Amino acid sequence: MRIVVALGGNALLKRGEPMNAQVQRANVRIAAQALAPIAKSHQLVISHGNGPQVGLLALQGAAYEAVEAYPLDVLGAETEGMIGYMIEQELGNLLPFDVPFATLLTMVEVSADDPGFKNPTKFVGPIYEKPEADRIAAEKGWIFKADGAKWRRVVPSPIPKRIFEIRPVKWLLEQGTIVICAGGGGIPTMYEPGAERKLAGVEAVIDKDYCSALLARELDADLLVMLTDADAVYADWGKPTQRPIRSTSPDALAGISFAAGSMGPKVDAACRFAAATGKPAAIGALADLNRIVAGEAEM
Amino acid sequence: MRIVVALGGNALLKRGEPMNAQVQRANVRIAAQALAPIAKSHQLVISHGNGPQVGLLALQGAAYEAVEAYPLDVLGAETEGMIGYMIEQELGNLLPFDVPFATLLTMVEVSADDPGFKNPTKFVGPIYEKPEADRIAAEKGWIFKADGAKWRRVVPSPIPKRIFEIRPVKWLLEQGTIVICAGGGGIPTMYEPGAERKLAGVEAVIDKDYCSALLARELDADLLVMLTDADAVYADWGKPTQRPIRSTSPDALAGISFAAGSMGPKVDAACRFAAATGKPAAIGALADLNRIVAGEAEM
Repeated sequence: MRIVVALGGNALLKRGEPMNAQVQRANVRIAAQALAPIAKSHQLVISHGNGPQVGLLALQGAAYEAVEAYPLDVLGAETEGMIGYMIEQELGNLLPFDVPFATLLTMVEVSADDPGFKNPTKFVGPIYEKPEADRIAAEKGWIFKADGAKWRRVVPSPIPKRIFEIRPVKWLLEQGTIVICAGGGGIPTMYEPGAERKLAGVEAVIDKDYCSALLARELDADLLVMLTDADAVYADWGKPTQRPIRSTSPDALAGISFAAGSMGPKVDAACRFAAATGKPAAIGALADLNRIVAGEAEM
Repeated sequence: MRIVVALGGNALLKRGEPMNAQVQRANVRIAAQALAPIAKSHQLVISHGNGPQVGLLALQGAAYEAVEAYPLDVLGAETEGMIGYMIEQELGNLLPFDVPFATLLTMVEVSADDPGFKNPTKFVGPIYEKPEADRIAAEKGWIFKADGAKWRRVVPSPIPKRIFEIRPVKWLLEQGTIVICAGGGGIPTMYEPGAERKLAGVEAVIDKDYCSALLARELDADLLVMLTDADAVYADWGKPTQRPIRSTSPDALAGISFAAGSMGPKVDAACRFAAATGKPAAIGALADLNRIVAGEAEM
């Protein structure tokens, strides 16, 4: 089978843990141990989130005032390098030496008329007191929203339309390469209006599950797995009638609503992939990955 | 022809310029304009330096004290993402849409018994006053040397032995892909002693010209071009007998010594490639790239 596995950014730098390199590497190692058995008998493509990592780079950039902080597209590219490196190295250490690996920088096209640009919702970077947030908003044109008692920058989260490097990913898979790509949902880019149609980075963050679903579709993957902290998707989460959904279809899910911030995009991405391809998509915990691939714990 | 072009890290962030994203992008654009005509009629592999970029990330990391600064291998991986992204996007904007691009994360093996580890010489990161340098040296085991009146960390610059992702680079070239790889000389890695032979990052910096020469040799490249600020390599630099070397051979160069920090590694890398392959290597300015490739301004 050709399998796309999406790792959560929070699985690599967990909330509350110190955000240093050793902790991140230890978490990557745990993920690699779950991925290694899959890589031995399937074609494997790995994507990953980058929320905490972009957050850290934004904090570091803001702390060094001598140089203006880098924009989100560049920070995203940096995290594709950082996280991709750790995954490639740790997974490589668990597999035979001759298994080829490639971590590919991934640019993704988004549309200027995406509704996400009208209503930015994704928190990024440091938290500020109101006056400081107002000052930065006036200076840089950033939009801030309340995050608890403090203020934090919000950016749009547009739908991914096209993965530019999809052909190299395919060619490498055909050679038996384990490919790491589409990190952080890909680097958001857009064609600037005008005759020359120049591609440029955008101040936005693409949902990595939506991007992974697009990736899986474009690669004709047999299975899309989105890994998360939860052991299952639950209907009626938090209510007395709460129950795990073990197996379902896009049609059956259409009547159920999920939280926008957490499980919603995953369920939506799974439905998009399943509806477009007729192939299964699964949402589950890292510890269940091998059972999911074996079809024993499918969403 | 299959051509490996190595861009200097200083060509992308010049000494004295503000180190922000706009300036770096403007410099990448200038490089892309020189590379585009070559890409149209040759197989092109682009490598690049990352000195100023790693320096900036190290400064930003040191400024944000809440999280321990990331090690050099991870910073190197981040710069491969950052710089590779800008090159891929800017060069892509100058070429037909259907030209495939791939920016590959590149890990390079170095040897534990490399003499570079006994005598670290490469300056990285912020400058410190002596007491602060002594404190950090005691805390982290870093080695500091005097850089003018201040103190700065030095790290080893070992010789690159193996490029792990060389097969993916070859496969992508065979499909007509423009490949960006081996950024910053590659991420320095080493096999940890012990039965398991785990690969791990190393606190070191690999010379990007040595790595580019290894890359060109492994790819059976027809030409290696190392771009720099100088218009030529000079014999007797700074003396009344100073003269540009227009064309030469490793044997003829053996009797001439070049400065260790600047031109020496480039000349050495060129000689290694030429001696091993019988193919030409050139050192020159970005503005002369097209004449170099046409054979009119060859080293």
